[in-house]
Amino acid sequence: MKYGLAILILITHFATAQTLTGFLGNNSEKQSQIEAAFLNLQESERFKNHLKTLTKEPHVAGTKANERVRDYMAEVMRKAGLQVEIFPYDIYLPVMPGTAYAEIVEPVRIPLNNKEYIHKEDPFSSDPNLHMGYNAYTGSGDVTAEVVYANYGRKEDFEKLAALGISVKGKIVVARYGGNFRGYKAKYAEAYGAAGLIIFTDPGDSGYAKGLVYPEGPYYDESGIQRGSLLTLDWTGDPLTPFEPALPLDSKKKITRKKPEEVTGMHNIPVLPLPYGAAKEIFARMKGKPVPAGWQGGLPYTYRIEGGAELKVRVNVQQKREIQRVYNVVGTLVGSELPNEWIIAGAHYDAWGFGATDPNSGTAMLLALSESLGKLAQSGYKPKRTIKIAHWDAEEQGVIASTEWVEQFRDELEAKGVAYFNADGAASGRNFGAASSPSLKGLAIESTKVVPYPDSSKSVYEHWLGKRAAKEPPLGNLGGGSDHIAFYTHVGIPSWSGGTGGPTIYHSNHDSFSFYERFADPTFKMGPLVERVFGIMSLRLANADVLPYNVSRYGNDLRTHFEGLQKLTSAYDKSSAPYSFESLIKASDELKKTGEECEAALKTANEANKKAINQELLLLERQWIDKQGMPYGNWYRSLYASPDPYSGYASWMLPAFQFEAANKSTANLKIWEQKYLDTIARLKAKMETITKLAN
Amino acid sequence: MKYGLAILILITHFATAQTLTGFLGNNSEKQSQIEAAFLNLQESERFKNHLKTLTKEPHVAGTKANERVRDYMAEVMRKAGLQVEIFPYDIYLPVMPGTAYAEIVEPVRIPLNNKEYIHKEDPFSSDPNLHMGYNAYTGSGDVTAEVVYANYGRKEDFEKLAALGISVKGKIVVARYGGNFRGYKAKYAEAYGAAGLIIFTDPGDSGYAKGLVYPEGPYYDESGIQRGSLLTLDWTGDPLTPFEPALPLDSKKKITRKKPEEVTGMHNIPVLPLPYGAAKEIFARMKGKPVPAGWQGGLPYTYRIEGGAELKVRVNVQQKREIQRVYNVVGTLVGSELPNEWIIAGAHYDAWGFGATDPNSGTAMLLALSESLGKLAQSGYKPKRTIKIAHWDAEEQGVIASTEWVEQFRDELEAKGVAYFNADGAASGRNFGAASSPSLKGLAIESTKVVPYPDSSKSVYEHWLGKRAAKEPPLGNLGGGSDHIAFYTHVGIPSWSGGTGGPTIYHSNHDSFSFYERFADPTFKMGPLVERVFGIMSLRLANADVLPYNVSRYGNDLRTHFEGLQKLTSAYDKSSAPYSFESLIKASDELKKTGEECEAALKTANEANKKAINQELLLLERQWIDKQGMPYGNWYRSLYASPDPYSGYASWMLPAFQFEAANKSTANLKIWEQKYLDTIARLKAKMETITKLAN
Repeated sequence: MKYGLAILILITHFATAQTLTGFLGNNSEKQSQIEAAFLNLQESERFKNHLKTLTKEPHVAGTKANERVRDYMAEVMRKAGLQVEIFPYDIYLPVMPGTAYAEIVEPVRIPLNNKEYIHKEDPFSSDPNLHMGYNAYTGSGDVTAEVVYANYGRKEDFEKLAALGISVKGKIVVARYGGNFRGYKAKYAEAYGAAGLIIFTDPGDSGYAKGLVYPEGPYYDESGIQRGSLLTLDWTGDPLTPFEPALPLDSKKKITRKKPEEVTGMHNIPVLPLPYGAAKEIFARMKGKPVPAGWQGGLPYTYRIEGGAELKVRVNVQQKREIQRVYNVVGTLVGSELPNEWIIAGAHYDAWGFGATDPNSGTAMLLALSESLGKLAQSGYKPKRTIKIAHWDAEEQGVIASTEWVEQFRDELEAKGVAYFNADGAASGRNFGAASSPSLKGLAIESTKVVPYPDSSKSVYEHWLGKRAAKEPPLGNLGGGSDHIAFYTHVGIPSWSGGTGGPTIYHSNHDSFSFYERFADPTFKMGPLVERVFGIMSLRLANADVLPYNVSRYGNDLRTHFEGLQKLTSAYDKSSAPYSFESLIKASDELKKTGEECEAALKTANEANKKAINQELLLLERQWIDKQGMPYGNWYRSLYASPDPYSGYASWMLPAFQFEAANKSTANLKIWEQKYLDTIARLKAKMETITKLAN
Repeated sequence: MKYGLAILILITHFATAQTLTGFLGNNSEKQSQIEAAFLNLQESERFKNHLKTLTKEPHVAGTKANERVRDYMAEVMRKAGLQVEIFPYDIYLPVMPGTAYAEIVEPVRIPLNNKEYIHKEDPFSSDPNLHMGYNAYTGSGDVTAEVVYANYGRKEDFEKLAALGISVKGKIVVARYGGNFRGYKAKYAEAYGAAGLIIFTDPGDSGYAKGLVYPEGPYYDESGIQRGSLLTLDWTGDPLTPFEPALPLDSKKKITRKKPEEVTGMHNIPVLPLPYGAAKEIFARMKGKPVPAGWQGGLPYTYRIEGGAELKVRVNVQQKREIQRVYNVVGTLVGSELPNEWIIAGAHYDAWGFGATDPNSGTAMLLALSESLGKLAQSGYKPKRTIKIAHWDAEEQGVIASTEWVEQFRDELEAKGVAYFNADGAASGRNFGAASSPSLKGLAIESTKVVPYPDSSKSVYEHWLGKRAAKEPPLGNLGGGSDHIAFYTHVGIPSWSGGTGGPTIYHSNHDSFSFYERFADPTFKMGPLVERVFGIMSLRLANADVLPYNVSRYGNDLRTHFEGLQKLTSAYDKSSAPYSFESLIKASDELKKTGEECEAALKTANEANKKAINQELLLLERQWIDKQGMPYGNWYRSLYASPDPYSGYASWMLPAFQFEAANKSTANLKIWEQKYLDTIARLKAKMETITKLAN
C-alpha cells in the first residue's frame, strides 16, 4: 500500500485549526486527519495517464470507441474498490457523421473547408476517425440561397432583423457562435422562415483576436470547428422518452416511447457549423448595408446584413436518426453508517472528438478520485454516507444519459440525494471557477481553503478570490448546459459544478491530449487540484454529523434574485400600481434570519436527533420542486433554478418569474407570488423544525 | 438686396418669446428681430460653392495653392463688406514632401504602399499634386531594423513594454493612431531609444471594423493615411519664436529668432504614417509573444509585441525644414457702439490635402457667415461690438499662425477680447457637438435652442441633447488640438469650439469635396446650421447690454474638476494625512453662489453702469492667467485650462494640479492650493464688484 497512514503526518498548513461545519465535538479533528490523508494521495502522473488513455481515439456517444472508454472507466473503478454498475439506455440519436458540407455557388464556386487542419505539432490531428464539422439533430436538406447575417442568432437578433425590414425567408442564415445555445439559433432561424443555417466561429470571439491560434496558441485557428447538439425540446433528455428512462428496448420493463414524428420541436432546416476560414469567404463577398452596432466581428471586412443577389451559398446536410445504445458507468462506495444518503460526483465521458479538455479532463479527475477514495477506504476511512462516481454518456447530444438515469431512479434520488457535483471538463485550464445552488456555497468556499494551489503559497480559495475586493470569490448560479440539469432542476438535489478552466478549442477535433499537454495544463497538476476540491467536498458531506448545508444562503440569494426581477419587471410594467416584489423580499429576509438561527443551532446540534435533523436537511432543496412544472415545459420542476428556455445556456433563477419577465407579462405575477411565498414558508418551517431538533 | 427687412416676418417658431440673457428692457425683443432676420440669410448653395472652391486643389501651408485659397477668402469677405487684413509670418516649416517610404526588407522584400488609392468615384483622388503619406517635423534617417509594437504609443504603453522587459532600443516602433497626439508617440519612441517609428491607422479603430470603407462608406480604406504634425515643444506656435510673433524677416520690426539647433525637443528619429493595407504586411510576419490585454487591433492576426529577428523593416524619411511665409486673413465688422470689444470667430484654412471636412467645412461656413453678417449690417443691423472673422494658416503643422497672431496682438487681446469661437472643420458631419470654457456654456445652450435642425421639427439643442436624460447636452471642456489654444490658454479669452461631425477620413487625401458630398453632408444643410449657431452666439455677444457670460458656471465646473482631482490624487497619495481638496471645493461652492447672485443682479442691471460692468465682465476669464505659467511650459499661462502635455489632445482642467497628479507628486499641492484660492478669491471679488455695479 503506497499511500496510507504513513503520510498522515504530512498535513498541509491549510488543513490545520479549522472548525468544520457539520462536525460535532472532536469529529472535526478526526475529519481533518482524514482530509490530510486524502490530500496526500493525488498524483499528476496518475491523472495524466488516465487522460491519455481516455482520449486516445475520438469517442462519440454510440460508437465502439466510446464503449472502449466505458470499459476502461469500469475497470479502473473496480480496481479502486468501488462497486461498479453499467446502465444501458436506448436513445434516439443522430447517425454520425452523415453528409455535411457547404460551398459558395455564385459568383464563383468555392468549396468551404469544414474539417480541422492536420498540424505536425499535434499527431492526433491526422487521426483517420475524425469527422468533419456537423451539428447533432440538424434537419436534412440541400439548399442553395442568398445569405443573411444574424449576429449571434439570438431572439433579439432576429427581432432586430425584422425591425430593419430584413426577411430571412428562404435564405441561408449565417450566425456566429456565442450568446446562446446553438440550438436556439436553429430554432429562431427556422421560425423566421430560413432555408438553412450556417453557424461559424468568429475570430473576434474565439480566434486570432483573442490570442495565438492553434497549434501556436490555445485559440481556434481558421479551421477549428465547434460541433454540438441543436436539441431544444421542452424537456431535457432522450427525445422519445420525456419523464421516463429510455431503458433498452430488450429490457424487461417496457417503456412507452414517442414516435419520432410525434416529437414537436425538432429542427427541420439543414444546419452546419463552419470555421472562420470558411466564413471569411462568405463575408468577403457580401454586399449591402453594414450591420447594426455590436454585430461586427473579427473578420477583416465590414460585416453586412445581406449577401445580395449575386452571392449564392449551398448547404447540404443529410443526417439520419435512429435508436442507439449508450451506457452510464457508476461506481459506488457504500456508506458505512448512512448508506441511504448519496453524494454523487459525475461527468459525461462521450466527446465530439478526443475530448481532452471537454469532457475527459473531468473524467480523468473522477477516475483518480475513485482511486484515492478507494485507497482511503482501504486504509480504514470508509465514508459514512454513500459516495457515487458517475460517468454519463451522450451528454453532447443533449444531456441525455444522465437524465435517463435520474428518471430511472427518481424516487430513490428524491429520498437519498444529498448533493450532485458536476465535473464536465473540470480540469480544462488553470483558473478555478464554480457555480452552485445556495446550500452548497458555504461548503465550496470552506473546502477550497484547505486545498493548495500548485506552485504557489496560496490556497485554491485565495487563487479563486484573486485581487477582488469582494467578500467571496465569484460563485455563480447553476443553470443549463450539463449533467446537473436533471438532478437540480427536475428532482431538486443541491448541485454544484466547479473546476479549472482557460481558453480551449471547444468541441473541435483539436481538443486532443496534445492540446492539453501544451496549453490546458503542461504540469498536469490541475487534475489533482480539482480532485482535491471534489474529494474534500465529498468527504465533508459524507462524514458530517449533520449535513453542512449553507441554510442561511437560501434567503440571502433569494433577496438578490428578487431584486434583479424587480428591475426586470419595472422596465416594462408601467401600470399605475406596478408589481412589487416587496413581500417576497421581506419573506427572503425572514428566511435568511431563520436560516442563520438554524445554522447557529446546528453548530452544537443535539446528537440524539442527528438522524432526524439530516432527514429534514436532506429535504430542504426538494421544497422547490413543483410537480406542475414550469409554464415553458413541465419537465422543469424547480421553482428555484432552470436553464433559460430562450437561450439554453444561461441560468434562470426563480424561473417562473423569469418567464413572465421574458414575455413582458404581468398576468401571472400574483399567482406565482403566492406559490413562492408558500415555498418559502415551507422552507422556513423546515428550518424551524431543524432548529428545534438541534436545540 | 436679396435678403433684407422683407423677410423679417419669417421669424421661426424657435425664436419667439425668449428673454435673452444680457439684454435689458425691450432690447431683448429687438435682438430677437435681428436674429430672425439673420436666420433667414443662410443658403446651402452658397456654403457648397465656397467649399467647392476652397477645396479644388490640395493646399498645404506655404504653397502657392494655399495662397490662392487666401486670396479667395479675402475677396469673399471684402465683397461682403468686411475690412480685410492679411497678416504674413515667416515660420520654420518642414519642406514637403521630401522622402518618405517604408519597405519590408527581410524575410522578403515588400514595398509598403503609402499613398491613397485612386477611386473612380472620387475624381479628386487622382490629382497629381497629392503627396504620399508623411508626418511634419519628423526627424530624418534611413533605418532598417526589427520591429516592436507599442499599441497607441502612449506614455503608459511604453511603460508597459518596459515592465514586460521589452526594449525598443535600436528597433522600429510600430504604433497605431489614437489615444494621444501623434507627436507624443514620436517623443516617447525616441526617449526609449527607438531607431524609427511607423504610425498606422488600425482598421479596428477607424477602418472596416467601424463601417463601410471609402469610397463605399466614410471609413478609411486600406490605403487611407492620417498625415499630421509631430511638433511637441514646451509652447505652441512657431518653433523659433516662442512668446513672439514670427513677423516676416523683411518687416520693420525685427523679431529675435532662435537658431533651429537651439530648439530642444524637436524629434530626431524618422517617423512615417502608414495605411492599414501596409501595416497588415508587417503584422502578418511578426513572431513572438501575443500582446497584453487591450492592445489587439482589427487586423486579422493575433497582434504580437515583437517582430523577431527574421523580420526587418526599413523606414527612410528625409525631411528638410526652412523658414516659409504663411498668412492669416482677418475680416472685421467694426462695432457700432463698442468697437474695442472683440468677438472673434476663426478657423484654419491650410490642409494636408483638399481638406474638405478638415478644415474647410469650417472655412466655408465662416465665409458664408461673413456674407450674412455683412448683409445684416447693410440692412441696418451693424453689430454693437466688433466681430472678427479669421482664417488661420499653418494650423496643421502645429497651430502656428493663429498663435503668432495672438502673440502679435497680445496686449490688445487682453484688453478687448470678449470671446473666441473656433470652427476647425466645423461642418464635417451631421451630429452637433461642442466644447467650451465655463462662461460661454450658457450662451451656447441658449443659442442652439433658436436654431432649427434641418429636416426635422427639432432645434439644434434638442438634436444635441438627443435621448439623454441629462439636464444639458454633452458640452465638453476645451483643451488642445486647434487654434483656440493661444486665445484660451495663453491670453485667457473665453473660448468655444463647436459644429457638426461624423466619421471622416481625417488628414487623408480622400478628404475631398467628393467625400463631403457623398458622406459628410449630401444636403449641404449642415454648413448653414453651424453658421446659424456661430451667428446667433456672435450677435448676442455683440449686441448684449451686458456680456451674457455664464458667471455662476465657474464655481459649478470648478467643483467637478476638484472632485476629479481628488480621485486622481487619492489614488496615489497614501500618506497618513492625504491631501484634501476640501477647502478648494468649499471656495468653488461659494464662488458659484456669488456667481448666481451676480447673474441675478445682471438681469436688471443698472443701465448707467453698463460700460463699467462690461469692463469687469471682460476681465473675469483673465484672472486665470498666471504670468509665471505652468511647470511643464511657461507659455501655457492659464491656471484653468491647458492641453495635456503628456498626450497633446486631451484637455487638462486646472493643469497645475493635473501636472502634479500625472507625476504622482504631492510636493506642490499646497503651493498650488494657495494660488488657486487666490485666483478664486479674485474672481469672487470681481463678481461682487459686478453685482454692486448692477444693483
